[in-house]
Amino acid sequence: MNIYFACSITGGREFEPVYQDLTKALLADGHDVPTAHLAASNVVSLEAVVDPHEVYERDVNWIRAARAVVAEVSVPSHGVGYEIGFALDAGKPVLCLLQEGRKVSKMISGNSHPHLQLKAYRDSAQAVELMQKFLAELK
Amino acid sequence: MNIYFACSITGGREFEPVYQDLTKALLADGHDVPTAHLAASNVVSLEAVVDPHEVYERDVNWIRAARAVVAEVSVPSHGVGYEIGFALDAGKPVLCLLQEGRKVSKMISGNSHPHLQLKAYRDSAQAVELMQKFLAELK
Repeated sequence: MNIYFACSITGGREFEPVYQDLTKALLADGHDVPTAHLAASNVVSLEAVVDPHEVYERDVNWIRAARAVVAEVSVPSHGVGYEIGFALDAGKPVLCLLQEGRKVSKMISGNSHPHLQLKAYRDSAQAVELMQKFLAELK
Repeated sequence: MNIYFACSITGGREFEPVYQDLTKALLADGHDVPTAHLAASNVVSLEAVVDPHEVYERDVNWIRAARAVVAEVSVPSHGVGYEIGFALDAGKPVLCLLQEGRKVSKMISGNSHPHLQLKAYRDSAQAVELMQKFLAELK
């Protein structure tokens, strides 16, 4: 499936190892992941050279083309919050993954949109399992 | 006018003094600001006792009822990112205020939606001026 993976870039990269485990698992399972490069350690410098309008248009077009969105939400991010709303408006199923003990905005945790799921995970391995279960149920 | 003021809550309160100057100015200018309490120092504990679904429904209904949205975006926030997208979809003019030297997601800075403005400010006083100019032009 074509999957849009959303994670914090400007907002902070503390969870980069989790982003990498999630995108690696998606690619290993044969999914198309146009944003897989957003998990890489050099993404902040790579994305800095791209025109902001090009990034915006690229990303919303990727969301439109995706079957579903997987968002890691342990670190606050305007971009990820915006993308979650955009994806729900576009009718895409959205899985938000949050590390246990972290807090996320009530605009996410209190959002009862039928296409939105929020799941807490202990470690990367469990985050991958939750993502795989979410995607298996879409088939 | 009825103005929806958006700021980070769960994401971090570093800019609370700016939020307070902005909401004070809005109220002093005679605007209705249903979210003015979100600028207060005790908001995190106050909002913690409210059911997340109630907060979500309350906030999106306030956005729907607002003439415009003013969002302080210097601190990353899923909620504010979501609200900006929600407001644009609802046809509301949105002003994003960013402290000079701070970075914001390209989903905001690269977004060429005709109802979205992003302005950088040096200090609270200039942020208030930019907000007042934005609102004056809506009349």
